[in-house]
Amino acid sequence: MPDILHKVGIKSASSSDVYEALTTIEGLSAWWTTTTQGDNNIGGVLQFRFGNGGFDMKVLELDPARRVLWQVVDGPEEWIGTKISFDLDQRDDRTIVLFKHAGWKESVEFTHHCSTKWAVFLLSLKSLLETGKGAPWPNEIKLDSWE
Amino acid sequence: MPDILHKVGIKSASSSDVYEALTTIEGLSAWWTTTTQGDNNIGGVLQFRFGNGGFDMKVLELDPARRVLWQVVDGPEEWIGTKISFDLDQRDDRTIVLFKHAGWKESVEFTHHCSTKWAVFLLSLKSLLETGKGAPWPNEIKLDSWE
Repeated sequence: MPDILHKVGIKSASSSDVYEALTTIEGLSAWWTTTTQGDNNIGGVLQFRFGNGGFDMKVLELDPARRVLWQVVDGPEEWIGTKISFDLDQRDDRTIVLFKHAGWKESVEFTHHCSTKWAVFLLSLKSLLETGKGAPWPNEIKLDSWE
Repeated sequence: MPDILHKVGIKSASSSDVYEALTTIEGLSAWWTTTTQGDNNIGGVLQFRFGNGGFDMKVLELDPARRVLWQVVDGPEEWIGTKISFDLDQRDDRTIVLFKHAGWKESVEFTHHCSTKWAVFLLSLKSLLETGKGAPWPNEIKLDSWE
């Protein structure tokens, strides 16, 4: 089963700062999609919308300043049941984010698409924390005509 | 074995335009690293340098406007023997690039790093063709302190 892996190092950001951007509606809205809502507690479901489509994520783990784990409970067929994790490690004044989107059943063109799209949004997270300004949907870099 | 997968759609670019950026020293220097040299023919070896380190790639396949395949013959231990492919598909006025870096023996932090770094450079390729200006090394987005 192919996993999508990424890493961003975020300068002048504590792991607590990054954790907040990954776990609050305000934070998530500022780097992933402006239309984020839902229950951000363990067992709650977050709704991320991108125009007509989107993802519902159940919050499985919250380890403050260290780890966030979600499971996709609604969205594109290829995503349902997959798990998304963010592991944080503060090194000096930088926080390293190790990202994994695990559980894809097979590699299809949509896997390629989502991998690069995750990079686009993780670079938006980095920008948000380093400069105060992210590029969440609908202002992120588009990869294809159907976006 | 984990593969790194990516996709970028490049607007107002033919697959021949993209192929040229992937197969000429001038093109590669404008989106990946300014210090690119070597033999860009089948069986030749391209040298990509990023300051002290870098990669040597043997050109295995060249299918004009459709596909490029390299194999890493020198560089970081994790990369040696791995294969990197670019498959091109022109759809209307856009060219879709499906990228694969295959043959990683295991997923380590460096795999995460290289996955996001490939996205950074593929977005530079997209920018080069869409705007005339890429962001090759040393001007690309940095992810960690050791870059």
